[in-house]
Amino acid sequence: MKAAETPAADTNSIQPGPAPWQRAWFGVIFGHESRPGKHFDVVLLGVILLSVLVVMLESVGSLAARYGLWFDVIEWVITLLFSLEFLARLACVHRPWRYVFSFFGLVDIVSLLPTYLGLYYAGADSLATIRTLRLLRVFRVLKLARHVREARGLMIALRRTWPKITVFLSVVFCSIVVLGTVIYLVEGDANSGFDDIPTSVYWAIVTITTVGYGDIHPVTPLGKMIAAIVMLLGYAIIIVPTGLFSAQMISDRQPGGDAAKACRACGATGLAADARFCQSCGVSLDTE
Amino acid sequence: MKAAETPAADTNSIQPGPAPWQRAWFGVIFGHESRPGKHFDVVLLGVILLSVLVVMLESVGSLAARYGLWFDVIEWVITLLFSLEFLARLACVHRPWRYVFSFFGLVDIVSLLPTYLGLYYAGADSLATIRTLRLLRVFRVLKLARHVREARGLMIALRRTWPKITVFLSVVFCSIVVLGTVIYLVEGDANSGFDDIPTSVYWAIVTITTVGYGDIHPVTPLGKMIAAIVMLLGYAIIIVPTGLFSAQMISDRQPGGDAAKACRACGATGLAADARFCQSCGVSLDTE
Amino acid sequence: MKAAETPAADTNSIQPGPAPWQRAWFGVIFGHESRPGKHFDVVLLGVILLSVLVVMLESVGSLAARYGLWFDVIEWVITLLFSLEFLARLACVHRPWRYVFSFFGLVDIVSLLPTYLGLYYAGADSLATIRTLRLLRVFRVLKLARHVREARGLMIALRRTWPKITVFLSVVFCSIVVLGTVIYLVEGDANSGFDDIPTSVYWAIVTITTVGYGDIHPVTPLGKMIAAIVMLLGYAIIIVPTGLFSAQMISDRQPGGDAAKACRACGATGLAADARFCQSCGVSLDTE
Amino acid sequence: MKAAETPAADTNSIQPGPAPWQRAWFGVIFGHESRPGKHFDVVLLGVILLSVLVVMLESVGSLAARYGLWFDVIEWVITLLFSLEFLARLACVHRPWRYVFSFFGLVDIVSLLPTYLGLYYAGADSLATIRTLRLLRVFRVLKLARHVREARGLMIALRRTWPKITVFLSVVFCSIVVLGTVIYLVEGDANSGFDDIPTSVYWAIVTITTVGYGDIHPVTPLGKMIAAIVMLLGYAIIIVPTGLFSAQMISDRQPGGDAAKACRACGATGLAADARFCQSCGVSLDTE
Repeated sequence: MKAAETPAADTNSIQPGPAPWQRAWFGVIFGHESRPGKHFDVVLLGVILLSVLVVMLESVGSLAARYGLWFDVIEWVITLLFSLEFLARLACVHRPWRYVFSFFGLVDIVSLLPTYLGLYYAGADSLATIRTLRLLRVFRVLKLARHVREARGLMIALRRTWPKITVFLSVVFCSIVVLGTVIYLVEGDANSGFDDIPTSVYWAIVTITTVGYGDIHPVTPLGKMIAAIVMLLGYAIIIVPTGLFSAQMISDRQPGGDAAKACRACGATGLAADARFCQSCGVSLDTE
Repeated sequence: MKAAETPAADTNSIQPGPAPWQRAWFGVIFGHESRPGKHFDVVLLGVILLSVLVVMLESVGSLAARYGLWFDVIEWVITLLFSLEFLARLACVHRPWRYVFSFFGLVDIVSLLPTYLGLYYAGADSLATIRTLRLLRVFRVLKLARHVREARGLMIALRRTWPKITVFLSVVFCSIVVLGTVIYLVEGDANSGFDDIPTSVYWAIVTITTVGYGDIHPVTPLGKMIAAIVMLLGYAIIIVPTGLFSAQMISDRQPGGDAAKACRACGATGLAADARFCQSCGVSLDTE
Repeated sequence: MKAAETPAADTNSIQPGPAPWQRAWFGVIFGHESRPGKHFDVVLLGVILLSVLVVMLESVGSLAARYGLWFDVIEWVITLLFSLEFLARLACVHRPWRYVFSFFGLVDIVSLLPTYLGLYYAGADSLATIRTLRLLRVFRVLKLARHVREARGLMIALRRTWPKITVFLSVVFCSIVVLGTVIYLVEGDANSGFDDIPTSVYWAIVTITTVGYGDIHPVTPLGKMIAAIVMLLGYAIIIVPTGLFSAQMISDRQPGGDAAKACRACGATGLAADARFCQSCGVSLDTE
Repeated sequence: MKAAETPAADTNSIQPGPAPWQRAWFGVIFGHESRPGKHFDVVLLGVILLSVLVVMLESVGSLAARYGLWFDVIEWVITLLFSLEFLARLACVHRPWRYVFSFFGLVDIVSLLPTYLGLYYAGADSLATIRTLRLLRVFRVLKLARHVREARGLMIALRRTWPKITVFLSVVFCSIVVLGTVIYLVEGDANSGFDDIPTSVYWAIVTITTVGYGDIHPVTPLGKMIAAIVMLLGYAIIIVPTGLFSAQMISDRQPGGDAAKACRACGATGLAADARFCQSCGVSLDTE
């Protein structure tokens, strides 16, 4: 597998700066293996979740009226912490601009800007919307998931299954459009909420995914029959992507699967993806 | 595997005409490998989706009143484009009638006719219904999916699983009918919407597929107990077809699976279903 | 695997009588391989479905008022046909009483009795309920599924997975009871429908199976949080039985599954298809 | 596999006392293999379920008013039986305190305390809540499931899949938070129930798990489009954990899976976990 294929390739290219303190800091802030690195991750996760919680609770009218001041204080403390963290990240990497324009660098900036912008547009109506942008900080949770080895196996299996799932989704898309239109023609005059085709297609999606709000539902016998077909169809088609993905996951981890390793010493192929020694000649595979 | 078994067999028999320009056009219009062929596919996909979107939005009363003229103009431009495309397809194939009566030929005609028919029956009440037929154009999306190799693997696995799924579905069918009748006997007098057996069977389908609109739901304690059984049953039985299909997908892609090929030259068995050359002796398997 | 384990063992013991015409009739009525046997099956399936349809439509007040006579006529024709079929079955089997008390013999009798009983209790109130019993005929559909080889594979995999699924279900049962009680304590005073524990447990089942009628739903913030946990739990636990059943289906058809080798020396079964020595007694399998 | 890895390790360390009658009682009360041990288990299961049923029915106002006395009688009989059982357990184990502070010992105490506490606080308002605690007895059902071998396989597969599922869940968590916020911004002014972000996130959970109560649903066209995306996302992502768990279950039970044995004589790996002889060279594996 080439490096270009790994999902985290863009961020893997973030390198520590040359100075010894840069390497040390980098190990703590970007690393996950060392003890301080793990502690840093856990604290960061806690602050992110607290930050998201504050934004969510702030939107509740009664809580905002009573604890508004506390929310503001917590918000500013968190913003200062995130600002320090951002500066520390910039200080210890080799090419700071490269980090700024990486995915997580942009997430960092989006996490900080809304609070600072709030200072200038304090009275504006759009303030609530801008403040809500701070919720995008939740994506920073993915930072911690990124280096987990399992995430890569997942991404690889998903990417391999994608072409088949695309074919499957185009069939589902056609079914939804056609069934939505049919129910519109059947139920359109019954005043049961199927007022136009987009609404009927929305109903078809609600039904085929088995969500079933019940805000719109057929009332005529023929409409109910069509609805029953849509439901059974939705119930049936979920098996297709599940089977595809299961098969992909299984063949990936099996000896002989797509993600199998090969031994450079004896040339044996089809070794298990997590094998550390060649099962034919016993040579270590870790040098790879 | 015989050619007759492949799902796209009927359209594979569409051949280019003898003239050089026919071969060239055919490669663009029917082919997917060359660069112009791919561009043609992408443009076609865009026009199809635009066409479907226009039909859907036209059904929204407020939009039709305001942008009706624009919708008509776009509709006519699209219809002309599709007409030209249809004529081009007829021009470059060997036996035009064969294409006309193929599945996608008929879809092409159904895509065009409603707009032209609209000219003659402009004032008719059934116009809306006829115009809606243009939505069937969405099936043309499948044209692009057709040649994707993955679609065949899917179809093969589905067809192999079909006998088992039929057995499973007949059990589900019996359960739905019997449980729908039982709930009708229990809840029929409670004025909770279970007015007759067909409605109760409709409720059983809504519940067993876990859609759960809530338009009809049991109110008596006994009815709720039966409903709980129906729900748990629906939750449980989804695992059966999922397991069947997963197992089929997996055994199909494994060396040694049901769909495995064998080499006629060296006798090697258990070759991957999509192998083009024998992995033991290198002989091409395509002559099969 | 012993014969006693096969699901259709009880009916396999139904044997044709000694006379030649008995054998010939038996082949048509009970058999599925010969051409007349298949035609008989298809006609029978059609009559069963028509019969079920009539019972269902009869329960619709407006249809019963208008087409009541027709329904009665069709009903009597079908009953006579089923009576003749039942007598023919009795005539051609070796021990008729054995058939009468088999599962499908009892289904046959239950299919016929309600109509004949209707003659004597024509004015009774319970007539409607008795007539509904005719819907049990739908189980005769299973007659056709019974001999399909696939049904056995399904039954075997289900029976093998059963112990694990029982463990899983007892965990689900405990979760439903406890979560239903918790939501009752939290929402009980909010007048949102959680009036007693059985109703709250019913809600927990509706939610954990992702049916979600919406007739009862939490209104307090704490209740909503608990509901969210129930939902995510229901969404998560569906993967367990699905995985179990998929794994069973796959291992059944793989080396080590049912199609595996058996050792002639010690009688060990389930050996890998590529095994060269018996893994129980060590005897070479190559002589096989 | 080390003992520390088995899920029931803490309770396996409960040993019978030295006296012969202690060993005999221990076999009946804690054992599951002997005939009296099995009978004891079945009776215990029945009493537990009866006890849970009584607590549930007691919460129904009308039933409590009419049969309140009966419920109290049954409750006290059950409590006495459970008290005797608890004392018998303490009498026959080697170190009674060790049992008291084990998981099931604590469940036993929690099962008994509420009834006795009810004697002292008979008039208290919080009585209903305390009595409800008796429902925790339902966890005793797990006692019977504990020794079933299948439960361990399940636990092991779940624990192995856990890291991947955590990654998956953090992606789902981020999606829910972001989509809930987006729908709040879009629908917040439409008075359709999306009053604050926590409520909107609750809606996102209701929708992504395909529960779909319908108590809150989008009314604006843009909101419906976002809802459709949430539904399709929920429908799609269920395949990921299902595939992960299926793959884990399958690789666990396969020769070559994580639980496979290896031959020390010839080095062959991937032997079935229950193999007694190497299938490649025939050497006994029992010396391991």
